[in-house]
Amino acid sequence: MSILVVGSVAFDTILTPHGNAEEVLGGSASYFAVAASYFAPVKLVAVIGEDFPEQERAFLASRNIDLEGLSVAKGRTFRWTGKYHEDMNMRDTLDLQLNVFATFKPVLPPSYRDCPFVFLANINPGLQDGVLDQLTTKPKLIACDTISHWIEGARPELEALLKRVEMLVINDEEARLISGDRNVVRSARKILEMGPKTLLVKRGEYGVLSFSPNSVFAVPAYPLEEVFDPTGAGDSFAGALIGYLAASNDLSEANVRKGIVYGSVVASFVVEDFSLRRLRTLTRDDIERRYRQFVSLTEF
Amino acid sequence: MSILVVGSVAFDTILTPHGNAEEVLGGSASYFAVAASYFAPVKLVAVIGEDFPEQERAFLASRNIDLEGLSVAKGRTFRWTGKYHEDMNMRDTLDLQLNVFATFKPVLPPSYRDCPFVFLANINPGLQDGVLDQLTTKPKLIACDTISHWIEGARPELEALLKRVEMLVINDEEARLISGDRNVVRSARKILEMGPKTLLVKRGEYGVLSFSPNSVFAVPAYPLEEVFDPTGAGDSFAGALIGYLAASNDLSEANVRKGIVYGSVVASFVVEDFSLRRLRTLTRDDIERRYRQFVSLTEF
Repeated sequence: MSILVVGSVAFDTILTPHGNAEEVLGGSASYFAVAASYFAPVKLVAVIGEDFPEQERAFLASRNIDLEGLSVAKGRTFRWTGKYHEDMNMRDTLDLQLNVFATFKPVLPPSYRDCPFVFLANINPGLQDGVLDQLTTKPKLIACDTISHWIEGARPELEALLKRVEMLVINDEEARLISGDRNVVRSARKILEMGPKTLLVKRGEYGVLSFSPNSVFAVPAYPLEEVFDPTGAGDSFAGALIGYLAASNDLSEANVRKGIVYGSVVASFVVEDFSLRRLRTLTRDDIERRYRQFVSLTEF
Repeated sequence: MSILVVGSVAFDTILTPHGNAEEVLGGSASYFAVAASYFAPVKLVAVIGEDFPEQERAFLASRNIDLEGLSVAKGRTFRWTGKYHEDMNMRDTLDLQLNVFATFKPVLPPSYRDCPFVFLANINPGLQDGVLDQLTTKPKLIACDTISHWIEGARPELEALLKRVEMLVINDEEARLISGDRNVVRSARKILEMGPKTLLVKRGEYGVLSFSPNSVFAVPAYPLEEVFDPTGAGDSFAGALIGYLAASNDLSEANVRKGIVYGSVVASFVVEDFSLRRLRTLTRDDIERRYRQFVSLTEF
């Protein structure tokens, strides 16, 4: 089953205690789409500038990603510069140039409008809502992400969106901000009352918690000797998770748990190198191998 | 099989965002011993002052804890006052009165010297080492804890001790401090080269990582709606773990993993109330029930 993703395609400049990378491929939709493409075909909606190199487009196309919805606008592609602290759970944005992304209004090509799996990566919740209005068939699963910027600045739009979404994928700080509660369990209960049937709370190197009305699932992050670049880990997590669910077409609790582990596996590879580099060589066999390592990491 | 624990018995005054508790039973050996006592008999070595109330001694005795090694010294019992931040992973020590603990030199009664399971709770590593010298029979398992104070202030003594210890139970900050490395996986590798065959890294609300030369195990903490008082969680974790290992007399990797989950279960109860209060009513059935909840929390 195919997956629609709407989000950003960007160039990132990334500074970490272990090295830097300049003007490398980034953006929520890029990470999501490439991660999901290991499992199922992806249809991408995003905007790029005239400066977007042909070889990056070719890379995305080579990954079974439909680029009909990738529009080219006059101007430069979205740029982001971020600096990670010694504690790589923390980062600062040093520079943000929205460029063509500033006026992005997602438009779904007709062939995208009946996608059974939909992921609304982090953009203005009003725009995320507008994507749903363009769908002609009720999807099997609508999932979305958001960030503090919208939780604080576009609360009514976000609340309207959450009523239409089955799965919310955010980090622990965002969960606290939405719920107004420091405790993650109470936060989850409050957020589940706002619409989503499943809440996934990403906790970086500490893994993921998944909450649904009758179940809690916890999976640790894969313990790595080197984390080069945490950028995109969350979107890759969501990509592999939704990819796995779309491929298996099974939204049972047990299968969602498996998907969460696949998401954790792919995210653990992504952070091993800058940008999407690790995904340029990663194979499905590599993913299966680390999935089995997750089993032995957690079984008792 | 019986367990020897050497450590502190104290009175704690605890300030948290949710309330305070004054002069309540605390100390590493108290938490460890009571947690372990759900599984196996415990022999306690610690010192108390003349002010230690008879009913607290009776409580410990009622838990199948041998108190022959609990010596009474002239003066007051050890006092600690701590204040937890809004983020309860962080706390400050507001007051510390060592009192009789200042001159504590652990002496094992003859009946304690052949204990097959030994836990050296956090005290001066030179004293921990001295406890091992008093053993007449080589134990099946020697485990210990330590804190930043000794890692920074008694490094040679600590390194000598680690050569004699099979299992080290510390938190992530202490692991970083011993290894000089921020990354927990590399830290673990370095620490395992210093002596211990198993390193347990406690990460508070994020659970526990266990490292041995050929295996890594990760278990999340039980997600709680209310954490009242994290004091003693680590010692209770160690107590239930060693208690389970002593009761089953099985140090296989698979059984150590089960023990780590029992440790996590008991720690999750301890933080639900101040001091050891929750353990005063907790039953073995409660423990088994939450153990099964850990299975459903983590299985995929």
